[in-house]
Amino acid sequence: MGPRHGHRKAGRGLHEVALTNEFDLIARYFSRPAPTTYLGVGDDCALMPSVPGMQLATSTDLLIEGRHFFSGAEPRSLGHKALAVNLSDLAAMGATPAACLLGLSLPELRPDWLEAFADGFYALADAAGCPLVGGDTTRSPAGIVVSVTVLGHVPAGKALRRDAARQGDDIWVSGSLGAADIALRLLTGELPPDPALLAATRAALEHPEPPLALGAALAGVAHAALDISDGLLQDLGHILQASACGAQLEYPALPVAAALAALPAAQQLRAVLGGGDVYQLCFTAAAARREQILALARSCGTRVSRVGRITARQDGLQVLDAAGRPLDALPSGFDHFS
Amino acid sequence: MGPRHGHRKAGRGLHEVALTNEFDLIARYFSRPAPTTYLGVGDDCALMPSVPGMQLATSTDLLIEGRHFFSGAEPRSLGHKALAVNLSDLAAMGATPAACLLGLSLPELRPDWLEAFADGFYALADAAGCPLVGGDTTRSPAGIVVSVTVLGHVPAGKALRRDAARQGDDIWVSGSLGAADIALRLLTGELPPDPALLAATRAALEHPEPPLALGAALAGVAHAALDISDGLLQDLGHILQASACGAQLEYPALPVAAALAALPAAQQLRAVLGGGDVYQLCFTAAAARREQILALARSCGTRVSRVGRITARQDGLQVLDAAGRPLDALPSGFDHFS
Repeated sequence: MGPRHGHRKAGRGLHEVALTNEFDLIARYFSRPAPTTYLGVGDDCALMPSVPGMQLATSTDLLIEGRHFFSGAEPRSLGHKALAVNLSDLAAMGATPAACLLGLSLPELRPDWLEAFADGFYALADAAGCPLVGGDTTRSPAGIVVSVTVLGHVPAGKALRRDAARQGDDIWVSGSLGAADIALRLLTGELPPDPALLAATRAALEHPEPPLALGAALAGVAHAALDISDGLLQDLGHILQASACGAQLEYPALPVAAALAALPAAQQLRAVLGGGDVYQLCFTAAAARREQILALARSCGTRVSRVGRITARQDGLQVLDAAGRPLDALPSGFDHFS
Repeated sequence: MGPRHGHRKAGRGLHEVALTNEFDLIARYFSRPAPTTYLGVGDDCALMPSVPGMQLATSTDLLIEGRHFFSGAEPRSLGHKALAVNLSDLAAMGATPAACLLGLSLPELRPDWLEAFADGFYALADAAGCPLVGGDTTRSPAGIVVSVTVLGHVPAGKALRRDAARQGDDIWVSGSLGAADIALRLLTGELPPDPALLAATRAALEHPEPPLALGAALAGVAHAALDISDGLLQDLGHILQASACGAQLEYPALPVAAALAALPAAQQLRAVLGGGDVYQLCFTAAAARREQILALARSCGTRVSRVGRITARQDGLQVLDAAGRPLDALPSGFDHFS
């Protein structure tokens, strides 16, 4: 099957003893000890206790250089973000992080790069209570490949599923919208250079902080949830599709990132409704839960905004202006769900 | 951070609606339903029940085109093998498969390729009772990237760890050794063309069948175990290192694959002791367990061979000939542990 066997764990093989040892060295950057009830990096599998009454939630993402991140991306940010986008999936399920695994394939060995990547990864893993318990480090002939798998726990039956929205639910959004999209457009040159605007938006793109505490607190309280990775309209569309519902969003209620205040209205709208890479939650909940949700968000230190309501399927997805009139010019993504 | 946002689940993004839909299509190849107690592909996370009294075992591997498999590898075999090498890790831990996740990044969309890959993957997943519950499908500018994560259950405290070998233990090997290594050397041109030999060895390389039932049956019976991916000497060396032991292998007791019978003795020796990609188990157990292990192996339909014993650390790793004399000429890998 393959030109190389011995691809396991540290990329060992018959003809690459020197490289082998270097990749063994790499693996050591990712061998910080796991909690005592776990068996961490170094065996065929990691082991962790199962928790009675909980369901296991798990998700995996593959990040490819030149597609999901720029070649030359700052490794500390990359380490952070590779884990953050996966933790965001746990938050969107109402799950509490329990462990993660990392696959890392690199074209060359640069200790400074590895140390920075590991620092970014571990800093978030520590903050999130999500120990790295296993992985696979190897050499890639092409670019950098990062695969992350996260595991978490959610009380049985309480997970926030996409298909659980109900007609009459409020629609909520955590955090703010649009900053990551503007940063991306500045970095790709789609928007003209604006160092001040880039400085104000870049952290949203490179250092997303998924609302883990809020996500876990919403399990059993909210109905449907997902994380906003592809843009609010497109992601909300997934809830509507899975739940067979429609929705009305109130555009003036959407939490526009403060850094966007000086931008033209059309740019704001595109970033807020269509901009991806947000890694905040869009969720739905019964109107009777409003006070409880506001209190939970306060206790988690996370901003939440009530931005609309779930309607009947045939109403499709509408965005209303301050006068309650549907907006016409909407970013792409809307068409799928109208 | 990245030239693309919306890398999630199906690789959606603002500027690639056509491609998006095609990759949504890809995702459908991997959306067969999960068991009713699971939530499978299609939400932020997969969900599965936790099993009281069991530990969760998990492992991940990253397979890169041109490194872990040939460019142009037959996709059905690749789908099988990508899962097999991970299931092998569960077997080596004594765990029973429970679920898997797949990350797949492709440079282009070829429905015939995808269908064959999915068929190979699902055929093994079904046979192993290891449903695919989640994943991430995206486009890769470089080659094919496959990441697989497996989850399994093992009775708490019964897992087969590398550090559990004890002096006086028997050393056992499941299946036979050497065929995958010979097939690899034929395919890379290291050995001269020999169609009959390739036909007799190729399945071992491309279609490994990890001994899942045996692995699970050995939990709580054997002491240490691992799967032979890098070659028997090198892998046994990992057990010795983790368990602070030495070992004596009896070369005549090793289960040489039948297809190798006509090869020169030196080639056999190199393939049997140093050849990787075997995905069979090397495990240790108390001598008092011999009859029980033979009975378990019979009931699992898996061949096992008793091939040596665990000794004191200072003895290192020795391979003895029929007269009980240590062999001198050993393949690379041995040096690390002598």
